[in-house]
Order: sequence, then C-alpha cells, then structure tokens
Amino acid sequence: MSSSPTTFILVHGAWSGGWCYARVAALLRARGHTVFTPTLTGQGERAHLLSGAINLSTHIADVLGVFNYERLEQVVLAGHSYGGMVITGVADRISEKIKALAYLDAFVPEDGQSLFDINIAANTQRFLQGAGTLGGLAVPAPSAAYFGVNAADAPTVDALATPFPLGCFTEKLKLSGGYRSVARHLYVHGTVLPRESPFRPFYERAKAAGWSAHALSCGHHVMLDEPEKTAELLEMMA
Amino acid sequence: MSSSPTTFILVHGAWSGGWCYARVAALLRARGHTVFTPTLTGQGERAHLLSGAINLSTHIADVLGVFNYERLEQVVLAGHSYGGMVITGVADRISEKIKALAYLDAFVPEDGQSLFDINIAANTQRFLQGAGTLGGLAVPAPSAAYFGVNAADAPTVDALATPFPLGCFTEKLKLSGGYRSVARHLYVHGTVLPRESPFRPFYERAKAAGWSAHALSCGHHVMLDEPEKTAELLEMMA
Amino acid sequence: MSSSPTTFILVHGAWSGGWCYARVAALLRARGHTVFTPTLTGQGERAHLLSGAINLSTHIADVLGVFNYERLEQVVLAGHSYGGMVITGVADRISEKIKALAYLDAFVPEDGQSLFDINIAANTQRFLQGAGTLGGLAVPAPSAAYFGVNAADAPTVDALATPFPLGCFTEKLKLSGGYRSVARHLYVHGTVLPRESPFRPFYERAKAAGWSAHALSCGHHVMLDEPEKTAELLEMMA
Repeated sequence: MSSSPTTFILVHGAWSGGWCYARVAALLRARGHTVFTPTLTGQGERAHLLSGAINLSTHIADVLGVFNYERLEQVVLAGHSYGGMVITGVADRISEKIKALAYLDAFVPEDGQSLFDINIAANTQRFLQGAGTLGGLAVPAPSAAYFGVNAADAPTVDALATPFPLGCFTEKLKLSGGYRSVARHLYVHGTVLPRESPFRPFYERAKAAGWSAHALSCGHHVMLDEPEKTAELLEMMA
Repeated sequence: MSSSPTTFILVHGAWSGGWCYARVAALLRARGHTVFTPTLTGQGERAHLLSGAINLSTHIADVLGVFNYERLEQVVLAGHSYGGMVITGVADRISEKIKALAYLDAFVPEDGQSLFDINIAANTQRFLQGAGTLGGLAVPAPSAAYFGVNAADAPTVDALATPFPLGCFTEKLKLSGGYRSVARHLYVHGTVLPRESPFRPFYERAKAAGWSAHALSCGHHVMLDEPEKTAELLEMMA
Repeated sequence: MSSSPTTFILVHGAWSGGWCYARVAALLRARGHTVFTPTLTGQGERAHLLSGAINLSTHIADVLGVFNYERLEQVVLAGHSYGGMVITGVADRISEKIKALAYLDAFVPEDGQSLFDINIAANTQRFLQGAGTLGGLAVPAPSAAYFGVNAADAPTVDALATPFPLGCFTEKLKLSGGYRSVARHLYVHGTVLPRESPFRPFYERAKAAGWSAHALSCGHHVMLDEPEKTAELLEMMA
C-alpha cells in the first residue's frame, strides 16, 4: 500500500480489551503506521479497576487522554461495537484532531442516546438480567459463540472476556454536533451472526449516507475473523 | 542490530505516563520488536482515575494484566525510577515469563521495602509535605528541572506530569523471592542530577552484582535525554 | 445538674467509632440532652467503606452532614484525639452553629497543619511503617495498651479497632479563621500514658489561653476510663 505513515487509535468493544487488536495493530505497524490500542477502564488488563463508578464518560476520557498525553493529531480513530459510542463522544470533543472515524460493526449514536436506546430490546433485557446476578453494576460476558467468533479464536475470546460496567450502556451520550466536522467515515459490517444483528441498520444508514461502507462475510469481531481485510480497510482511511 | 524480535514492556516512573517512552518505543519497533508502554493507573492518560485507592499493588496488577491479556512470554521488562518497584513486584509473580529485567535509573527494592524506605529521607519529607496540600493522598509533581530533564523536553514533561498516588510510595513490597529466578539484569544510571541521586547506590550495587550496568551522562529521564542509547542498551537484553 | 437541654455531637478519634461514646451519651441523654455520636467513614460500623480515598476532608464532611441533615444549632461539638482535627475543620465552616468546642485529649491544629505535622515524629514514623504493611493507605490500630485504656475495656477496644485511612493524617487542614468565632472551649487531658503524650502541649496551651482545661488521672480514652467525669465536663459547656 502507498498510504503515508498515520496514527491509528483502535478502541475495543464491551467485554474485550486492547488485546483484540493485536493482529491488526501488528499489520498496520509493519506498514509503518503508529498504533495505539488502549484498554478501556475495567476491561482486559484493567479489569482490576472494574467498579460501578465507570460509565461511558470514563471511557471517553480514557481515549481523550491518549490524544492529550501522546500529543496526537490527524488520527484515524476506530471503534468496535460499543466502541462506536466512545469514538463518537471523543470526536464530538476534538474533531479537529481526527482524520477519519472508522466504525467496526459498531453502534453509531446520535445526541442523547445511550447504547441501550439503540440496542435490540431483547439483548438489553438479557444484559440487565445478567447484571442482576453480578451485583447489579456489571454485565457478564456473553459467549464468543453469541458473537459468531471464528472457531480458532473463540476459546481465547471466552478466556479473556471480563464483565462490563453497566453505566457504559445506560449513560446517554451528549453531543454538541462537533463530531459532524470529521470529514471521512468508514463502516465495516460483519454479516454472519447467529441472531439478528443490531449493527445492520447502522451499516445500511452508513451506505445511504455515502460513507465508505463494507460488509465482510464474518462474525461480529471483524478484527479477529478478518484481520487482513480489516487492516486494509482501515489503511484506506490513512 | 542482530537481535531476534522480542517483546518489551516499558514501565514509566512517578508523575509520568507511557508517553515518556514514545521515542524508545518507536526505535525498538522500527527494529522489529513488539513494545508495550502501559500507563499506570492514575497517571498520564489515566489521570482521570487518580484516587487514594491506588497503591503499588494496583500498578503491579496493571502490568501483570498486560502479560495476561496480551498473552506475553519471554519479555524484556523495563522500569524507570519508581517503575523499578513495579517491575520487581511483577517479576516476583511471573519470573518465568521474563527474559530480562531492565532498571532505568530505578529503585531496586528488597522484600518488605516501600519506596519511602529506600528513598533519600529529605525527598520523602518533601513528597509528604506536598501531599498534605493536595488532600493528603496524591503527591504533586516536582519540576522537570528537579530531575535534570534536557532543556528541549522540560516544558513537555512539566505539561504532562500529573500528581502521583501516595500509596505507591508507602506500600511495602512483599517478595517471595521468585524474582531472583530472572536470569539477566540491566541497570542504566543517569549521572547528571542537580542534587544527590537516590539511584547511584542501586547502580553501584548492580555493578557489584555483575549486572550489565551503564552510566549515561544525562539526567534522570534517560529515555528522553538519551533515547538511542537507551534503546540500544535495552535491545542488548533481547 | 441544671443545664438546659442541649445538643451534643461527639466525634471519635482514629481506630475507633461512635461506640466509644456509648456511656457518655447515655449519661447525657439521661440528663435530657440530645446526643449524636457519628461514626467517621471507614471506621467502626462504617469500616466496610474503608479506602484510600478517605481523608480529613471526608470526615469533616461526615460531621457537617449531621448538622445539615439533623438541622442542628447551638451544638456542643466534642472531638477525641484525631477528632480534634475534625471539629476544628467543622467549626471553621459553621462556627455560628457551635456553642462550644470540646477537645478530649485531642489535637488542636492551626491553619495549614496536618496531624502528622503536629504529632510526635516517632509516632508518625510508626504509623507510616504500619501502613506500609497494609497496602500503604490504612494505618493498623495500635493496641489498647498503647493508649493506656483501662483493663476492663481494653479487650473491647482491641476487638473493635479498625485500620485508619492514611489521608486523614497527611492532609493539611485549611482554616479561614472562622473557627475563632466559637465562644467557649474545653480541653480534657488524660495524664496517664505509658509514653510521651502528644496531647500534653495542647493541654498546656489551652490552659494558657484561658480555656476550661482539666487533667484527669486516666488514659488517653477519657470517655472510657472516666465516663462520668467526661460527661460532667461536657455538660458544663451546655
């Protein structure tokens, strides 16, 4: 590829961690790019910080901090699944530092919406039921099978998944509109899910809006099921 | 260089963040290595998590998490300054995953010691007094000048420094002795400080113990003042 | 006695709880007074809230809350030992609601002082060392014998003592001077301690300042060793 060296921040989804981007990050770094894969508070290697005090705002602050402390500009900012909530919130605050937004089978919220507001109601019900058995403030991880993860990676995904803070799903995102200044958008949809996909409508809307929109014939975790294609699509935004 | 691709985890010191290793990480990655620069809880881009609930055990858990969730082995584990407390604690728990320990102008604690126990008493007193003015549980950052940071980087270091959790300085490290199984050790000492260096004795002891011990004619932040030399010395451990 | 019904708030010291005032409270209530014995956050029956996030400001807020939510005025506010730090901070904020301040073998701080600043240095050192073995942020309780508690109560005191948050000892108290408007002051000193008393200088200063100052021939816990006398002296302030 011929893209110039670019900085990528890859934000994971719920019940995950920066680890899920290991392959994509290695591919992008091998092509000369700088890549950050921050783990959101209470997840992955930060699971010891899990508490009911964590909400969507915490995770937005997690990512804003990477921009501020690593002094980054012209960033391609990607979010997977729930990570779409986070990157939209970040973009609303510092759109001038963002070259492109990449939604990887992700939620694309509007002002005033929480993830639960734009999720399939039955899934929300399931997550709330799970939280109820776990102290009320953390949602236990669904299995890798629930997300249609490829067979080779499923055991790892199950082993590394950690409970997810409920407040990240319930907090409504406040958007001033600043995120609309970002010039370029990517949507990557994984079409193979053993149930109705909450992400299909976002993919359709992305296409209709003229975003660079792509459907991959794989599960929800596109960075695990299709790392090369995911890296290639991300690099198109560089 | 001819070293085989190796994984490095670079742990920063007090009042800092993963950002301080940006240059060294880029140099090592350019040579084909995999590099993690986790920011400790309450510092740098995790400064929004600062609280008195953070102690040395929190930071050891931060780094153990990187090993566990990124599934790393044969790691060169480096710590700067206070980071020496952290990497010793990590090594005590999972020495089998550590190829070499690298102390970058760092404290080298023994069983039962807190940083305050092995610090220069006047410095400890200064830190405690500072904490008293800041709610009692976080130590305000000394200036870059206090650490002899090079003139070009000093403003950045001052801008990015954040208060440091007191419990990280007071908690005594419990060591079972497992850390002694690590085969290889590096000590890098920055000799130019506008005051007595708390690190000189550790450097002398490292030399006496037959570690690979090196004195650089620069300030305490060797990764900022001498990034090429620091990367080169780290790569010797690969 | 002939004093008019008065409201008392009795603030305990470090490693204690409202329970230590049970006898004194019963005596005062039997005489028609209203008595509150709040337990400070992280202590006694609030020990499940212990964390390094607690500091002197937390405890001042604890007591301010009793004033605000119970709608109290014309209060005799007493503090034992460390409680002297707390009641001074409270008095600085709402002196108009305080009829008298009663220091029961307590620290009497001035603006900008932490408890560690006005403690005997060797004791501070002992507390810091203890905290180091307990995660760095909570000071384990000295034995009842250390405080010269009477033989009958010592086992209870040892059983009910809980670790004390370090930040309460390190945070410097900011005083605007408002506390100086309180009209009346009591100091009660327990003279029998198996070591140098940190409280004797405060007692001497209280005498010199014309406070109602009394020395009891008992240990540091005057409310346990001499409940009748303590209640009687407190009632003098009603």
